[in-house]
This record gives sequence, structure tokens and C-alpha cells, in this order.
Amino acid sequence: MAKIMLASDYQEGAHPRIVERLVETNLLATPGYGTDAFSAAAREKIRAACHCPEAEVHFLIGGTQTNATVIDALLHSYEGVIAASSGHISVHEAGAIEFGGHKVLTLPHHFGKINASDLAVYCEENLHDGNREHMVIPGLVYISQPTEYGTLYSRAELTAIHDVCQRYQLPLYVDGARLAYALACPANDTMLADLATLTDAFYIGGTKCGALLGEAVVFPQGGRVPHFFTIIKQHGALLAKGRLLGLQFDTLFTDDLYLHIGQNAITAANRLRAAFTAHGYALAFDSPTNQIFLTLTADEKEKLDTVVESSFWEAPDTDHTIVRLATSWATPLDKVEQLIAALD
Amino acid sequence: MAKIMLASDYQEGAHPRIVERLVETNLLATPGYGTDAFSAAAREKIRAACHCPEAEVHFLIGGTQTNATVIDALLHSYEGVIAASSGHISVHEAGAIEFGGHKVLTLPHHFGKINASDLAVYCEENLHDGNREHMVIPGLVYISQPTEYGTLYSRAELTAIHDVCQRYQLPLYVDGARLAYALACPANDTMLADLATLTDAFYIGGTKCGALLGEAVVFPQGGRVPHFFTIIKQHGALLAKGRLLGLQFDTLFTDDLYLHIGQNAITAANRLRAAFTAHGYALAFDSPTNQIFLTLTADEKEKLDTVVESSFWEAPDTDHTIVRLATSWATPLDKVEQLIAALD
Amino acid sequence: MAKIMLASDYQEGAHPRIVERLVETNLLATPGYGTDAFSAAAREKIRAACHCPEAEVHFLIGGTQTNATVIDALLHSYEGVIAASSGHISVHEAGAIEFGGHKVLTLPHHFGKINASDLAVYCEENLHDGNREHMVIPGLVYISQPTEYGTLYSRAELTAIHDVCQRYQLPLYVDGARLAYALACPANDTMLADLATLTDAFYIGGTKCGALLGEAVVFPQGGRVPHFFTIIKQHGALLAKGRLLGLQFDTLFTDDLYLHIGQNAITAANRLRAAFTAHGYALAFDSPTNQIFLTLTADEKEKLDTVVESSFWEAPDTDHTIVRLATSWATPLDKVEQLIAALD
Amino acid sequence: MAKIMLASDYQEGAHPRIVERLVETNLLATPGYGTDAFSAAAREKIRAACHCPEAEVHFLIGGTQTNATVIDALLHSYEGVIAASSGHISVHEAGAIEFGGHKVLTLPHHFGKINASDLAVYCEENLHDGNREHMVIPGLVYISQPTEYGTLYSRAELTAIHDVCQRYQLPLYVDGARLAYALACPANDTMLADLATLTDAFYIGGTKCGALLGEAVVFPQGGRVPHFFTIIKQHGALLAKGRLLGLQFDTLFTDDLYLHIGQNAITAANRLRAAFTAHGYALAFDSPTNQIFLTLTADEKEKLDTVVESSFWEAPDTDHTIVRLATSWATPLDKVEQLIAALD
Repeated sequence: MAKIMLASDYQEGAHPRIVERLVETNLLATPGYGTDAFSAAAREKIRAACHCPEAEVHFLIGGTQTNATVIDALLHSYEGVIAASSGHISVHEAGAIEFGGHKVLTLPHHFGKINASDLAVYCEENLHDGNREHMVIPGLVYISQPTEYGTLYSRAELTAIHDVCQRYQLPLYVDGARLAYALACPANDTMLADLATLTDAFYIGGTKCGALLGEAVVFPQGGRVPHFFTIIKQHGALLAKGRLLGLQFDTLFTDDLYLHIGQNAITAANRLRAAFTAHGYALAFDSPTNQIFLTLTADEKEKLDTVVESSFWEAPDTDHTIVRLATSWATPLDKVEQLIAALD
Repeated sequence: MAKIMLASDYQEGAHPRIVERLVETNLLATPGYGTDAFSAAAREKIRAACHCPEAEVHFLIGGTQTNATVIDALLHSYEGVIAASSGHISVHEAGAIEFGGHKVLTLPHHFGKINASDLAVYCEENLHDGNREHMVIPGLVYISQPTEYGTLYSRAELTAIHDVCQRYQLPLYVDGARLAYALACPANDTMLADLATLTDAFYIGGTKCGALLGEAVVFPQGGRVPHFFTIIKQHGALLAKGRLLGLQFDTLFTDDLYLHIGQNAITAANRLRAAFTAHGYALAFDSPTNQIFLTLTADEKEKLDTVVESSFWEAPDTDHTIVRLATSWATPLDKVEQLIAALD
Repeated sequence: MAKIMLASDYQEGAHPRIVERLVETNLLATPGYGTDAFSAAAREKIRAACHCPEAEVHFLIGGTQTNATVIDALLHSYEGVIAASSGHISVHEAGAIEFGGHKVLTLPHHFGKINASDLAVYCEENLHDGNREHMVIPGLVYISQPTEYGTLYSRAELTAIHDVCQRYQLPLYVDGARLAYALACPANDTMLADLATLTDAFYIGGTKCGALLGEAVVFPQGGRVPHFFTIIKQHGALLAKGRLLGLQFDTLFTDDLYLHIGQNAITAANRLRAAFTAHGYALAFDSPTNQIFLTLTADEKEKLDTVVESSFWEAPDTDHTIVRLATSWATPLDKVEQLIAALD
Repeated sequence: MAKIMLASDYQEGAHPRIVERLVETNLLATPGYGTDAFSAAAREKIRAACHCPEAEVHFLIGGTQTNATVIDALLHSYEGVIAASSGHISVHEAGAIEFGGHKVLTLPHHFGKINASDLAVYCEENLHDGNREHMVIPGLVYISQPTEYGTLYSRAELTAIHDVCQRYQLPLYVDGARLAYALACPANDTMLADLATLTDAFYIGGTKCGALLGEAVVFPQGGRVPHFFTIIKQHGALLAKGRLLGLQFDTLFTDDLYLHIGQNAITAANRLRAAFTAHGYALAFDSPTNQIFLTLTADEKEKLDTVVESSFWEAPDTDHTIVRLATSWATPLDKVEQLIAALD
């Protein structure tokens, strides 16, 4: 049996409908830099899906790039961005935020999430007290939905964070690299329209959610960031053949594809979590979306390595390893069943 | 008759062979970030095409991004990059080089080119004289082949620039966004192997030369820039699904496709230059590659605008406009003939 | 005879009244970072001297630092600063502006000055035309008074530049490193109150005008730059013992000392210009302030080098050298006369 | 009784010998930017005091500026600096390190200190493991001596840290803003020559240790950072009248003044620690140098506030406040005794 590849959720190409349309439109000549008709249509569909007709929508290429560009655009030069200590921008972006001149100010994470009360305490100390003029001024809050731990902010939690942000006049930005896996998750109650209502900016992930590449940045309030086009260019984040991004998001937002594309991943992940648990494997922590975290003994790891490609997460002690398995819109369910069978 | 679209050379999708292979490989699961087999194969083919088995090859996404990343990687923090005043990095990258902390030090251009003697004078004044410690220290020379004016550096000119660089211990970097249009041009005598011999880094343009997106950075001397992978990530320039770049360059370097893909553009451009001249239109300056620059009266412009989509270049005086027409690997030759017919 | 030292105007310590007060106050304990009473008093006196009771005044240490901090504070991250090609920030600040992420956009200079009509053309092309979204957006105009060539903007010229800035909503910033030498110059008609009326920010130079160190930044409109204190700190430009700056500017603005401190320099420079001309030496160009530029043959240079320490400016051709002589508030007039006598 | 001012150790001017020499030399004309004879003499004396004849010595103005400049000079663009979470660069420099593009990577602190074993674990995980290419690469270790908590690294501790640095090829940099208070402390066994042996760079603090302003950067290995002069200029950290720094350090290193100048502060601090303890006040933690940290009840704080100016450190709970008292070379011992008397 060939190993099932679950090391990440960006291993396959694109959803078949996207590939079909790439083929159909390949030799059309369109203007560059996102001024094409596909991009315009995609923007319109995203606005509709977010119930936010005034939103400004831009297409960028990848997650780190999007975070660096949006965060730099939303901050003043002397401000930093608040994030969970486990946030992607805190740990896994090679210092892209600092490259733009900004400090990442970390809060403790609770399985990938920050909570509103920690945030309120931090803001009170850092924005309302005196004596902080020698410190970096917080200028933005960054969270991920789902988080890097596969966990979800409920609508109530997101609202509570939003309320703290409003109280301290801090913009809120949501990294939705895996947003489709939240939207397809039964446990989720945070919809696109909620993000549009509760945040100053968020991005709808394409790369990990059915596209070859691409992330759609949404500013619910149009005109929120003057000259954002030039800022994208300055960050090397402007795609010449922008139609490639427009066409993909147009497809993802046709017939609500984006709202459903994550279901296969959730089905597969739920099957796997149940099967691992039934077979005595320990979940490192619970997560409702497409990422599964297992705490393995050396023997368990050796066995699993023969049947599934996972990724290393961390070593909690010398006897155990935590690995991550990520399912996707493209994970073959028959291979999932073969893997489960191999656990016996 | 539908207008022929010659506003730029990044208007169409990708060469049909690329699209075919994207379709074929779409659901394969591959590891991310350029560690896949397509990327490995593409690197090997590029090394062979450059006659440079030791070269290090990386795939990035677009030109501005590639320039910003490579230039930042090659410079010390206190150094600047020498470029023609008309260079892409000087004018059309929205300050991406300065965003990385570096000044662009400009030399006068001669239809897009710098020459070795100007460069030598500049280096002598700025690197060998005293009294320059308060000024930006030049740390790199940037040129484009072909240039933004469609002109070419001959092998002799490139060698002369290389020799000055060697004398002053300055690395030399070549922006090959349109390199395929140089390689397909009968007037060109600078081959890939010459670039590998005469430069410290260059990039082979994909976006404008048959790919959906992508540029291949070549460091002829492997290990020239330690941790370049992390530098790419830090610049937001690392594509998660790196196989998309690898597969495209693998295709472009199979059966020498890249060496020939520009021929259609050169054929079309030569036909157009001859026809415009024959019809009394004035070339703003001569250029042997895929870009054509016309100095038009208001009447001429009005007429041309009805049959061809061009791009504005500059207004030399109040009565004239210079426009640019760019052909590409995908320009339909029958439409070129229709355009020429419409000049009568 | 000992050579007279005219290589620069920052060769001596501080005006004697400053030194006296440093001695008197040395062991007083004061709070740090400019929150002391000397700094408060100095701010008040500067506001009065500028006829601008609402002005916000900050004390920084040196010119390059002040320019980098103020310019970074006034620009958005994607904007550049317009300056003369001869401007200090363009040439002699080792890329400090670019280190902060901003491009210096140069206009041709006319003996150190830009003019309003060149500026208007540039703004029209770069701010009102389309098609500039890939270029750096101008966000500020920088000029020096006096300029690096020792020349002066008349009130009418400054007003014309101000008017263009208003038309294009560009802030205007004046580098007054040598401002005392303008204010003491009979040809000058631009007063402190004019700078307060016509600019968004300017700095009153201390280092070259009688202080040991220090520059006073004036924002005529208080609150113009939120969190400027933190921005100063972020740029490493905050002096712990801020009273050292406050006390010096308090002294310089007591009894109008700053308005007169440059007179000695102007007297000396005028004597020298007249004497050099009378002895057949060629002024490279005329300048009414404390800097004198001579175009010397090799013989003349050899002779002058024995009696005066000057600084190299540039070599217009292989037979000539342009040198600069700078007088100051401290230049001994008897030594000036000795130098003149030696010209015979 | 006037309150004794112990809010910081940068409240007074300069040591009287420095002031004397400023007066004596005030009207001497010297060349700028540290090329004067005072600076040359000071460099020579510092080399001798460090037993390091090959050392390169530069004079900068303040601590944040020095840290930002040296750290930027020692790091590659993609590297970060390891520091204690309590380090000055981590917390109190308004993001100056991030402004230069670098992340501060924090280790837990033990009363201001990092320890070698934590550092070794961090290095092993971050430099030797795979899978870290998406993270910031550590490129330097920063520590303070004394620390921000007034504690000291013993020679053995510093050697252990140095050994880890050597093992992982990481440079080591020591912030000596208060170094004189370490050198004057009986508990200290880390001498200037040890710093020269065990580090790649350190700075000898002037601002808090008897100078009006100024910090002396020592690179024990000459030529360690090419073009450091230009880097200083680029960071806005070059003082035009460099003689002001040179003369101060020349004075501080004449007759070993710097080695003794901190004794008054240590005497005063020891008297205060003993007296506070005897009177039942709680030290928040012990520290052997010139900083004293008291955990106060509201009543105690109210009482102390009437007799001494202290600075707020933190509020460990709602009932207590930790305050810091800092003595200095200039603290009047009679006022210290008056304060102690007032505790009765």
C-alpha cells in the first residue's frame, strides 16, 4: 500500500473546476495586475458571500506575504501587532513582520487562541497606563481562524475580542489561511458575514483551500487603506497575471464552492480522530477542523511512519513525539480507510 | 475587427505544454516549498542549459519580488545597488528595494543600458576615493537583459561590465524578466552560459516568457548566499505549492523550449517594425526584441488606438506620444497581419 | 602662522554662554528624556521666537538623525520624499532615509535649490496622472535653508513651493542645520515666523550654530505627529540627559542669541569672498551665507593649502578643484585677516 | 527636607573633571566625526584598559542607538538576536531592533540574566535541528552587564555563555550601559579584559556612568565589522563634534577613573539596602549594584514618596508596588543618610 500523504494541506494542485477553467481561458488576453474581468467578478462574488457590498477585495499570492503586507499597511511605523505566541506571524514567517519594521507582541495562547480577557489586560497596561512611551505601541490584533492548532474561535469569542479592540481603538485582522475548513466544520458558528462585521480586515485562504495559490484580502470598509495597490507592489506581492488569482476565486465563489470545499477534509479528519482514539492513540489536544495532533510513543511513531506521511510538531519529552496530520479538500477517502484498516 | 492586444507581454496564460502538464499532475500529492521532484528536475535542466553544474537555482514568483529578494540577499545592510536610471528597480517597483533598506544608485542610461566606462568612473569615485564614508557604499550592479527599452547587451558589453565589477569587487546581477526574447533574437550573442560565467546571479523570466508565473534565480556559484531559502520566506516570496513553479520551468527547459519560445514574438515585432516604418510611422528608438516604441502624432495615435491596444510610455512634447507595443510567445500572427493591413 | 581651520562649521565647542550654564547646572538632578525644566523653557522661547504658540518642539541630537526621524514620521510606509539631487538626504546621509524604508525622489538642483515650477511639474506627473501606481508615491517635500551650496530661498520662493505643496497636499519640511547663518544674512528675508507659517515641520540647527550638539524640531501645528516621542526613541534619537539639549536651546533663544550668533560667520565670509575675488580667485558660484566655494588651479590650491584648512567639494575637470571654506560663529576674525594678508 | 532624587542614574550632568576639560578645550578647532586627537587618545586608553591592543573602538551617543547600530551591524538581514525577555532591547527600546528588520528572540530571564543551559537548548533546537528554515535564524546573543535587574554575570557564567556561543558560532554582545557599577562592585569578578576576551562586541556605558552622553563600542577583534563608520552614519548615530565623546572617554579612562567612578553609587546603594531591610521593607529581589528594588505596600509607598523620588517598576498584585531606586556616581551621601533617618 502506498503511504497516504497527510503532511500538509497544500500537497495537491487545484480543485478540478479551477483547472478546467484555466484550460478554457488560457489563451485569452487580459489586462494585468488584477484589472481583468475575472478578478472583478470574483470581487463581486466575495462581497456578496460576505454580505458586505462595500468591501474592498484584493488578491495576493501566499499567506506570509499577505500577512506581511496587510499588517504593514494597517500599522503606523512605530506600532506592533499583538498575536498569540503560537501565531503564524510569531513563529513561522521567518521574521517577515520584523523585516517590515514591526514587532510581534505576543500573548499566551490557549491551544492556538488568545482570549479577550488577556487581551483586555494587555491593552489596559500598554495603552492606558503612562510610562509606556519607551515601549512598542500595540496597533493591531492578529488572530487565525482556524488557528495553527486547528481550533476555532466561536462567534461569541470573536465578538468579545472585537469588543476589546473597539474599546482600545485597535483594528482586528484575521488570518484565514484555512478558513474553508472552519466554514465546513459543524462546530463552527462564525460565518463570512461575521468576519465582515467584526474585523477590519481578514483574508480568505485559497492556497490551502482548493486553489493553486492565492489569498483574498477583504477590507469590509472600502477605502480603509489608501494606496493598498501600491503597498502590494512595494511588498513584491502583486501578480502580473492577476487573472490567475481572479479566476480561481471566481470559481471558488461560484455556487458556494468555498463554503463546501472543506467538507471532505472534515469528514476525513473526523474519521481519523475517531479511529485513532478507538485504537488507543492519544490526541495531543482536540481540534475540530482538518488538523489532527497525535502524541506518539516511539513504537507508535515507527508504525505510523510506514503508512502515513505526517509532519513533526514538537517533542514534549524524550519519549514522545507530537505529529500533525492534515487532511484537505483533496484527501482520498479510500486511502483514509486503508490507513484506518492498517491501525488494526 | 477585434483590436489586437499588445499592451504587454503578460496578457495570456501559459504555453500549452505547461497547461497540459498542470492538468496531468493536478491531483498528485507532492511536498511543499520547492522540495518536490518537478522542482528538482527543473533545477537540473537549468544547470545543464547554463553549462553550470554547480549552480544553485531557486524559484520565485514575480519580477519585483525576485529583484527585492536577491538584491537584499546580495547586499550588506549599508550598501546600495547601482542601476540605470531607467532600470525597473529604479522606477517601477514602488520602492521595493528601499523597503528593504537599500538605496538605488543610478547611472545615466543609453536606451536602457549602462556602459562600462560610466560604471568605472562611478566606482573609482565612490569606492577608491576617500571622503565617501558619509555616502551609500555601492555593493552590487543591476542590469536588465533585455532592458526596459528592449535593447540588448552584447556579450562584449556584458564582459566589459563584468570586468569593471571584478576590478571593484562588485557582484553583478542580471534581471532576465524577458530573457527568452533576448535568446530568440538573431542580434543576441549573450547565451545562458555567458550569464553563468559573467554574473554572480541572474534570473530567467517565466512570467513574461510562457509561464503563468515564476522566475528562476540562478547563482552560478552554489552556496553564494547562505540561508537563501529563509531569505525567500522572510520576503514573503516562498510559494507553498512550489511544484507549480518547478513543473513550469521543467517544461520550459525540456527540449530547449525556453530557447525558442520567444521566436514568435520576435517574428511579430520585426514584421511590425518594418510595417510601421514603411507606413511612415516613427520609431522612438530602435530595439531588436519584442518591444516596439512608436512616436505618434495625435492623429496617428487616434488611428492606432482603434486597431491595437498599446501602452503609454511617455510624452516627449505636447504634440507627441510615445507608445509601447509588446509582442509575446502567444501573439497571433494572423492578427499582426490584420493590424498591418489596417495601416494602409 | 598657524593655518586657519575653515574645513567645516562644527569644529569648535559651544558658545561661551552655553558652557557657563553647563558648568553652573552640572550637578542639578533633573528628570530625563526632555521632561526637565530647561527643555520646557526652551520650548516656550522657541514658540515665542517663531510667533507660533501652538507649535510642538522636540530636541534631537544631530542632523542626519533628525532628518531620518522626522521624514519617517511624516511619510506613510509607501511614500517617498522629494528633495534636490544635491540635498543632504540625497547624498550625504549614508542611506539613512532608505534604511527607514523610503525612497528619496530627486529634482534637479539650481545651486542647491529646487524651484516651484519643477516641483509642480513633478507633482502633476506623479500625483495627478494615472499609471503611477507602480511607482513610489511622493509624500513630502524636503528642502534646506540655507542649502548645501550656501544659497537661500527667498520668502517668495519658499511661498511658491509652499503653494505647490498645498495644491498637491504634500507636507513641506525644512532642514535648518545652518539656519542661524541664514537669519544673520542681510540678503535673507525668510524669518522663523515664515517657516512656522509656510512649513509642516522644520528644524533649527544647533550643532553648526553654537551648540555642542542638538537640533530643535518644530511642528507648527501641535499634535501633527502622534507619538512622536516614541518615534524618536525607536530611531535611537532620544537623549537620556535631555536637559543638555534643553539648556543649550534655552540659552540660544535667550536675548535673541540665535538670531545674531551667525553674524560673525557672515562678516568673515564676506571679507573672504571679497578678498579672494580681489586677488583673482574664482568663486565657483556665489553664496551669501557662511560657505565659500572656490574653483582653484593646482597652483592656487597648493598655495592655499599652506594657510587654510578647507574641504574638498568636487573636481570639475582634471585641472581644477572646487574647495569649500566654512566660517562659523567662532571663526577668529584676526585669523581671517591674516589669511587675507597671505593672499598678497 | 528636599526629596532625594533616585528615579534614575542619568539625572545629573557629568563628572567634574569632564566639565573642567570641556571648558578648557571649548574653543579649540578640531576635525569632526571622531577623527580628532581626543578621540584617538580615548581609544588608545580604552584598548589599554581592556588589555586588548587590537581592539576597534567607536563612540556613539546613547544606549538604544548603540544597541540598534551594533546589533544591525553584527546580524545578517535574515537573522535575529537572542536576549532575555527582560532585556532592554526586548522591552524598552520602542522597537528599535525591529525597525532595523530584526526579531528579538527571547529566553526566560532569571532576575535579568539568561543562563548558558537555556541558551544551549535553544541553540540546539534552532540551529542544529532541521525544519527551522521557516523561522528566524538566531545570529547573535545579547546580554546586559549589569542587567536591567541590577544583577551581575559572574566570570564563570559569562564564560559558560561564551562557550555555548562558540559551539554554535554565535557572536556575543554585552550591553554595558551601567558597566561602571559592575566594575565598582565587590561582588564582581568580570573585568574589562574578560569582556574583551569573551565577547565579540561590548559597549562601555558613559551616559549613566559619569558622562553627559556617550557609549564606547569595543570590538576586541579589529576589522570585525567592515564599514562600521558608515553604518553608524546610516543609523543617524554619528556625532558631528565627535571630540565631545572622545574627550569624555579620554577623561574617564585617565587614572582609571572609570574603574572607580561607580564606588559612590555602590556605597550609597548598600547603605540603602541595609537600612530598608533593617526597617522592615522588603527587597523585591537582591541585586548587588546601584539599583534597589523594593516591594511596597500602599502605606509604605505613600511614606517613601514624600522623601525620595523613585521610579515605578511593576505591580505584582493590587496591594503592592515594586519601585526602583537608582544611585549614581553623583548621589550625595549626606542626602542618603537623611533619607535613612527619615525611615525611622
